Amino acid sequence: MAERGEVRPGEVVIELPAAFDGGVYFIGRIRTPFKTRDDCPKSTARSNAVGQVELDARYAAGLKDLQHYSHAVLLYWMDQARRDLIEQVPAHLGHSRGTFALRSPVRPNPIALAVVEVASIVGTTLTVRNVDCVDGTPLIDIKPYFASTDSFPDAKRP
Amino acid sequence: MAERGEVRPGEVVIELPAAFDGGVYFIGRIRTPFKTRDDCPKSTARSNAVGQVELDARYAAGLKDLQHYSHAVLLYWMDQARRDLIEQVPAHLGHSRGTFALRSPVRPNPIALAVVEVASIVGTTLTVRNVDCVDGTPLIDIKPYFASTDSFPDAKRP
Repeated sequence: MAERGEVRPGEVVIELPAAFDGGVYFIGRIRTPFKTRDDCPKSTARSNAVGQVELDARYAAGLKDLQHYSHAVLLYWMDQARRDLIEQVPAHLGHSRGTFALRSPVRPNPIALAVVEVASIVGTTLTVRNVDCVDGTPLIDIKPYFASTDSFPDAKRP
Repeated sequence: MAERGEVRPGEVVIELPAAFDGGVYFIGRIRTPFKTRDDCPKSTARSNAVGQVELDARYAAGLKDLQHYSHAVLLYWMDQARRDLIEQVPAHLGHSRGTFALRSPVRPNPIALAVVEVASIVGTTLTVRNVDCVDGTPLIDIKPYFASTDSFPDAKRP
């Protein structure tokens, strides 16, 4: 996908709305071994990396009981990604696909979702497995993972 | 969970930051049979309801190729929920739990996540199964569901 101004042949740029409709707080940071976008694995499935989720002290009480879940969903803010590409040409694909059929960080709302295994929680630091984002990525939410609503092992893809 | 001003005994309120760090666009609306919060099922696992995701025309090209996936992740904005409760007392639990150990709409960034089965896509309308939100809820993202990274059938919960 294109980032930081680059648009590939076949990609489609749209005009975004003039104003935002809602605001997000950055509630922490995700520490990973990946210092740049180019260092990152293609997805959490291709990452065995261990990272730390550092939650701001203000939100510490929000972690109560999270240790009883084996997995969590992280939502984070891809602040290095442009937001105005609605069709993208991933290098591995060679032709365009709609932004909503991709997990690219480039999207109108640059929110990424990763399911991680929670190895430990000490104070406001979660140690997690399977991280794939750039070191320092802003965190916007942590949710417990529920197999009952979140796991569809037979889901089909092309 | 408490909403619209109500705080239950045992719940903990925090002071939120003075300013937002990022902005979101509402990119469409989710149409469901549930006219109020009280009508909604507790989760997508308890809903067989069919709903429509109505994407704004501006983003239409972003749906290209999504029809090849059986399931999608919807992110939506729980605009009726307060954002400053960090411990909550769900009625079914009877004691407090941290916000990040709950899927409650009440959280610093009121973003909900639902995995839905995509029944059809016609124009900019997706018909989906397993919706659980209030009719008219603002949509902020659609992502293809990948069993390889998103499905953990053995994930543990209390």
